[in-house]
Amino acid sequence: MLTTRFTALFGIEHPIALAPMGGSAGGALAAAVSNGGGLGLLGAGSAKDPAWVEREVEVLAGATDRPWGAGFQCWAAPVRVVEQVLERGPAAIMLAFGDPAPYLPAIRRSGARLIVMVTDLAEAHGALGAGADVIIAQGTDAGGHGGSRGTIGFVPVVADLAGEVPVLAAGGIGDGRGVAAAFALGAEGALLGTRFLATPEALTSPASEKAVLEGGSEDTDRSSVFDIAHESGWPARWTGRALRTPFSDRWRGHEDALRADPEVRAGFRAAEQRGEPDASVVWAGESLDLVTDLVPAADLVGAIARETAEVLAQVSTQGGYRPL
Amino acid sequence: MLTTRFTALFGIEHPIALAPMGGSAGGALAAAVSNGGGLGLLGAGSAKDPAWVEREVEVLAGATDRPWGAGFQCWAAPVRVVEQVLERGPAAIMLAFGDPAPYLPAIRRSGARLIVMVTDLAEAHGALGAGADVIIAQGTDAGGHGGSRGTIGFVPVVADLAGEVPVLAAGGIGDGRGVAAAFALGAEGALLGTRFLATPEALTSPASEKAVLEGGSEDTDRSSVFDIAHESGWPARWTGRALRTPFSDRWRGHEDALRADPEVRAGFRAAEQRGEPDASVVWAGESLDLVTDLVPAADLVGAIARETAEVLAQVSTQGGYRPL
Repeated sequence: MLTTRFTALFGIEHPIALAPMGGSAGGALAAAVSNGGGLGLLGAGSAKDPAWVEREVEVLAGATDRPWGAGFQCWAAPVRVVEQVLERGPAAIMLAFGDPAPYLPAIRRSGARLIVMVTDLAEAHGALGAGADVIIAQGTDAGGHGGSRGTIGFVPVVADLAGEVPVLAAGGIGDGRGVAAAFALGAEGALLGTRFLATPEALTSPASEKAVLEGGSEDTDRSSVFDIAHESGWPARWTGRALRTPFSDRWRGHEDALRADPEVRAGFRAAEQRGEPDASVVWAGESLDLVTDLVPAADLVGAIARETAEVLAQVSTQGGYRPL
Repeated sequence: MLTTRFTALFGIEHPIALAPMGGSAGGALAAAVSNGGGLGLLGAGSAKDPAWVEREVEVLAGATDRPWGAGFQCWAAPVRVVEQVLERGPAAIMLAFGDPAPYLPAIRRSGARLIVMVTDLAEAHGALGAGADVIIAQGTDAGGHGGSRGTIGFVPVVADLAGEVPVLAAGGIGDGRGVAAAFALGAEGALLGTRFLATPEALTSPASEKAVLEGGSEDTDRSSVFDIAHESGWPARWTGRALRTPFSDRWRGHEDALRADPEVRAGFRAAEQRGEPDASVVWAGESLDLVTDLVPAADLVGAIARETAEVLAQVSTQGGYRPL
């Protein structure tokens, strides 16, 4: 048992949370992670499709009796969608990428815990000022959107700042070694996204699932290219890490030209709609090398927790650790 | 005592190596790290100034009876300079950034151990093929030159590949929490650079030392701007992480224009020669937030090793860890 202030806060078994990956962390995946003893967070994202959020929360709340939550992007999500989710009794709302202030009254009224994900020190100070119950220190190693701090150097500094507020590490963590490293860095758990893409519960297309299983960390990189093509409105300060494609290779470093070319952008989105492989965006992080098999999400939570405990036991008695 | 296959290989006390930082890891610093129980590596770099290397090796070999080594950049260093260093009896030669093959016969003849630093999986395979005795998995979190892999995701994969060859982690590690995290990830020690810039033994100007003590990780970034300005010939696949300056902010993203402008480059180098603050290059990594005081290097090795042992003991018995 790895009991930390994070697990104690929610009364959960394992110090592992699901990253609320927009589009892929739906209700079934979040429920499976919670049922496995972790904290499942629904990827409500920008909540640009409130009906999707409503439907997936319905699935989630119906599929677990354990604590669960939902994650929102502050630059985009309407307060009313967060309020609708709060009516279903989540244990936590996770906020990231922008100012948490507009959401605080509703979250506090509901009694849900506030988790704030941060990508730099200014955001960390903001999260503490907002009264976050848990802070997630996310490194640039993460898949999907994020900043430029590296996980291994960022987590200790956020832990120092956070004092009594528990910190989770995120970015580049894909197995028990990474979770154990998070502990060593001063975190009390870890948030994993990419690893959970390779589960039957994730909302990933067969092609994306194949790409995740076959791709490696060095096939990913971080840019604003897909955001520009999607015309999604993502603030450029947070870039996205995804599998590289001929399209991203073509336009990385030429973002201004892509911004100036509506035809290319429309063509990309049309190809994406048609499901063309070169136009599909697979957000994935630096842990991708460690993702080589499809495992039910609840089993994965337990397996990673067990490996974490084994690693911690081994490194305390001998230098280094090798998987058995 | 943290005994690992790395410490056993060299008969040293602590699983901590000094990054052979070109220009700043001179003989005095390398000797101090070795005298503190770590492995001091002289920053011989490109060895473009063989007289500097000869002088600093003299200082180093005269200042310690403990095992020491020197690090070279394979894209640049002449074999004969490595041979000259080998005559002084180093315990190890560290090679990085290019093909180790030309140096292998001399290293093997001497009996020195071969350490190879790698920044991606292809380099890791190459290092194993070259028969490296130790592999350093360096993340993009590192100061100075490096690749794009994040430390936390890269180390476990290199450890898996390396099998019986011990791995050190490098990049973003500045205290015992980072070294303990390296153990959790499967490494048997860590290589630290930035932390050792803030020692009286480092060859840093007073202005650079001040910049290191006052700067933070978010003041650094990674680019080829300074290499282009220096006309140093660094292959562009390895970029350098340094403190940002008005010059690097001006030219980042406009590298082609800088390549095409000899006057701007010459002006930068002239300003650098005159010691102008905006033109001085301070290579530093993501651990910079943790570097806030000047500590003698030998003391630092012991203090980091003690903290590592404390962290490992604490994380094995409780989730999370806070500095006492």
